[in-house]
Amino acid sequence: MTATSGALSTIRLADIVDALGGQLHGDGSREVQRIASLESAGAQDLSFVAQARLRPLLDRSAAGVLVVREDLREAALARGAAVLVTDDPYLYYARLTRWFAERIRPEAVPGVHPSAVVGQGVHLHPSAHVAALAVIEDGARIGAGAVVGPQCLIGHDAVVGEATRLVARVHLGAGCVIGARGVLQPGAVIGSDGFGFAPHQGRWEKIEQLGSVVIGDDVDIGANTCIDRGALDDTVLADGVKLDNLIQIAHNVRIGAHTAMAGCVGVAGSARIGAHCTFGGAAMVLGHLEIVDHVHVSAGSFVMSSLSKPGQYSGVFPIDDNAAWEKNAATLRQLHTLRSRLRALEKKIAP
Amino acid sequence: MTATSGALSTIRLADIVDALGGQLHGDGSREVQRIASLESAGAQDLSFVAQARLRPLLDRSAAGVLVVREDLREAALARGAAVLVTDDPYLYYARLTRWFAERIRPEAVPGVHPSAVVGQGVHLHPSAHVAALAVIEDGARIGAGAVVGPQCLIGHDAVVGEATRLVARVHLGAGCVIGARGVLQPGAVIGSDGFGFAPHQGRWEKIEQLGSVVIGDDVDIGANTCIDRGALDDTVLADGVKLDNLIQIAHNVRIGAHTAMAGCVGVAGSARIGAHCTFGGAAMVLGHLEIVDHVHVSAGSFVMSSLSKPGQYSGVFPIDDNAAWEKNAATLRQLHTLRSRLRALEKKIAP
Amino acid sequence: MTATSGALSTIRLADIVDALGGQLHGDGSREVQRIASLESAGAQDLSFVAQARLRPLLDRSAAGVLVVREDLREAALARGAAVLVTDDPYLYYARLTRWFAERIRPEAVPGVHPSAVVGQGVHLHPSAHVAALAVIEDGARIGAGAVVGPQCLIGHDAVVGEATRLVARVHLGAGCVIGARGVLQPGAVIGSDGFGFAPHQGRWEKIEQLGSVVIGDDVDIGANTCIDRGALDDTVLADGVKLDNLIQIAHNVRIGAHTAMAGCVGVAGSARIGAHCTFGGAAMVLGHLEIVDHVHVSAGSFVMSSLSKPGQYSGVFPIDDNAAWEKNAATLRQLHTLRSRLRALEKKIAP
Repeated sequence: MTATSGALSTIRLADIVDALGGQLHGDGSREVQRIASLESAGAQDLSFVAQARLRPLLDRSAAGVLVVREDLREAALARGAAVLVTDDPYLYYARLTRWFAERIRPEAVPGVHPSAVVGQGVHLHPSAHVAALAVIEDGARIGAGAVVGPQCLIGHDAVVGEATRLVARVHLGAGCVIGARGVLQPGAVIGSDGFGFAPHQGRWEKIEQLGSVVIGDDVDIGANTCIDRGALDDTVLADGVKLDNLIQIAHNVRIGAHTAMAGCVGVAGSARIGAHCTFGGAAMVLGHLEIVDHVHVSAGSFVMSSLSKPGQYSGVFPIDDNAAWEKNAATLRQLHTLRSRLRALEKKIAP
Repeated sequence: MTATSGALSTIRLADIVDALGGQLHGDGSREVQRIASLESAGAQDLSFVAQARLRPLLDRSAAGVLVVREDLREAALARGAAVLVTDDPYLYYARLTRWFAERIRPEAVPGVHPSAVVGQGVHLHPSAHVAALAVIEDGARIGAGAVVGPQCLIGHDAVVGEATRLVARVHLGAGCVIGARGVLQPGAVIGSDGFGFAPHQGRWEKIEQLGSVVIGDDVDIGANTCIDRGALDDTVLADGVKLDNLIQIAHNVRIGAHTAMAGCVGVAGSARIGAHCTFGGAAMVLGHLEIVDHVHVSAGSFVMSSLSKPGQYSGVFPIDDNAAWEKNAATLRQLHTLRSRLRALEKKIAP
Repeated sequence: MTATSGALSTIRLADIVDALGGQLHGDGSREVQRIASLESAGAQDLSFVAQARLRPLLDRSAAGVLVVREDLREAALARGAAVLVTDDPYLYYARLTRWFAERIRPEAVPGVHPSAVVGQGVHLHPSAHVAALAVIEDGARIGAGAVVGPQCLIGHDAVVGEATRLVARVHLGAGCVIGARGVLQPGAVIGSDGFGFAPHQGRWEKIEQLGSVVIGDDVDIGANTCIDRGALDDTVLADGVKLDNLIQIAHNVRIGAHTAMAGCVGVAGSARIGAHCTFGGAAMVLGHLEIVDHVHVSAGSFVMSSLSKPGQYSGVFPIDDNAAWEKNAATLRQLHTLRSRLRALEKKIAP
């Protein structure tokens, strides 16, 4: 049984209801082997309907167990499935994946792998796990139940909060702090130097980055994502921030609570981003600007000035067949001139 | 002699012809020290002409050996070079680089470096090589002739196919599978968690990612590229897919055979991409859409909806001097209004 | 005292003046604990005014020491601060951060950590430092005072120049060369294979990359940035180049001296970029083109053809509220048609 098969041999539906609630219609002794999509689920699998528009898929599903809202209960029962009714099937699904994962993920045994390198004055909670070939530098603190995965590095005096899991090969630089219950994917770099140089006679003189990175609780950070330390003050991610893969967060940036960013986003230095914002993939944010709470930036859009009103913002060149794009892009370079010509015509024609 | 000098002291031209074919015109005992570009090649170097438009470079080249098509044979001989005639000089060049590389790359000796950490129940083919400070977790399988380079990690129950080479510091997560003859560059992360969260009362609840990543044969993956595991089903790359550096492939994506993506491309969750497609650098693909076979997306273009017809697609804002851009970009924000004004004029003037 | 607190307990202002110069007005025995921004600095902190427009912040600052230009001397003294007058306060600040960092960064002790793996024929200067779990392959050369941080890899015959610091987990591939006084952030990959394949019957045949990467002196490279080795010749970064995080430099690229690139920039193969250029974040450069010295490309802009004149270039779709963007983007797809309609009107109206 592997961490990725999603398969368990002996889970009964009643076990799930005991753990996660929901109103059961059907046989609680039914076995559940996998969570699966509506299309791929079979008689021993559990599936769920998160949106009403998926009704057609429900009506063809062979899932043995279906998690639905009350309004789809009859339709689900008509499929011959056992049915779990809940207000928010997507949330139920999220919690169920976590309950599954706890059972199938190899448990991290407390203690330090003999190949790990642990420095002086390290505060390592007895329940924490330090895996193979990890490096813990002098003075670092690792909280209760924290997991420092294989090939991770925890720098001098850095702090890992309770139950935070550094999956593997995460770099947490000197003095950086991450709170409780975080999850950091492989290759993430926290606390690289910010990009600061003073120009001098055609050359760049490095400004040493003396700040740190301070990350709150319940923060997820994706694979190969980079968060630079502050120049003087700290770079700060508030509680509940979720960052996907290959994101760049420059020095002195502040990101408010529960803001989420999809893959390949970049945020330039000293930008201040509010809480409960979302950024689609490859969205970019210039430096030294402010974005208020509840702003949603579409994928691929470039934020060039402060956004002081909540709402959805976009700015992407529409894709087209190449020939059409070439003509339109060429014309775009004369757009200002076209506007002047239009104005001239309007004047001529005006009565 | 290093892996990067491209220099070999004792290769005779006839050795190359024996190994790779081609019609030789000239002295087979000539020594070849390097493969070089037309501009930089000297008397002991081999060069090639891949395109007819490079004829002017050919006419100035000092290469000792020239690989050309039949129509350039006389021109090549006129340079005093030994000449190899072949139908596809670029392909010949590709194969020659591989033949060279085999001779100059330090051979990977079968066996496990003493500093590597190997878990329980690992199936390690006797001809495989596991380098310094690699980690092989429990139950992993490493095929014949495979190379697990220094500082790589092979997760629980993950599978590395025959003759696949993980150059260095590659992360192959638990349960992930890569086929035969793959090449993975340093920093690649296969099997990071997909970015899945259920919103709940202004917070994000993590959806554990229970799927895996399944990669076919002859797949190349670039440095620091990330491929997330599927949420429930697997993320799938078919045979012959080629990914450059710093690419993000989100969960549940499927990429068809022999599709190639240049650096910095991003593909959002559940996108399905056909076979024989190409994506220029920094092209982006939104999630939950479909792209058919033989689609070519230009560099920097953003695919926002399904593409159901083969062809070349583009969508990039044309660069301009800053002052011109500022004027055109400002006007672009009123483009819809301009169109209305144009329409109004047309009505006025219509007979 | 940590590398990131920016705090030192016993520095006297006179020590700073002794080391870095400047004209002191006030009490040299004053203690300086931190460098801080004008807003956050207190009585024991030093701050600086880099731009005249920051005068309002100066007039509210509680900093104990202020570094200013002559024209702000009186204003600074009026705050009750000790004042250091210098021609270029920003440069003074840069140098001061370096002076601070030298004192607070844990010193790298010469020698090799017992957990590092060092190959045959390695030339390791006695003053160099090789940290925990680093790998130095056969024939590599590490210069005087160089630091190979934890979990780094130095490939066969690669060269690290004097006083260059690989912070941690840097990959320097076989045969690659970096000069003196460089700084490489965690996760950087130097010498990954360039992305080269010859198409053949619908498949891609790998072109082995036989070139190397050659990097000059005083070069900084950011976290998770990738620089590919050349196909035949080398990829070259001249002296003083500064690259931020998550940048992709493809094979055969040449970057001139003192050019700086912000995060997420991508440069495609064989592009030649001049000296003293700057690239804003996420700027992209197509391959096989040339950019002259002193070109400045705005963040998010896509360079699609050679730039033969110095200057500032831009090309970004302006962000807007989503509804406005949708209308303007839709109209943009008909822009060429609009131009034709405008032309038709002009003809009709022309006298």
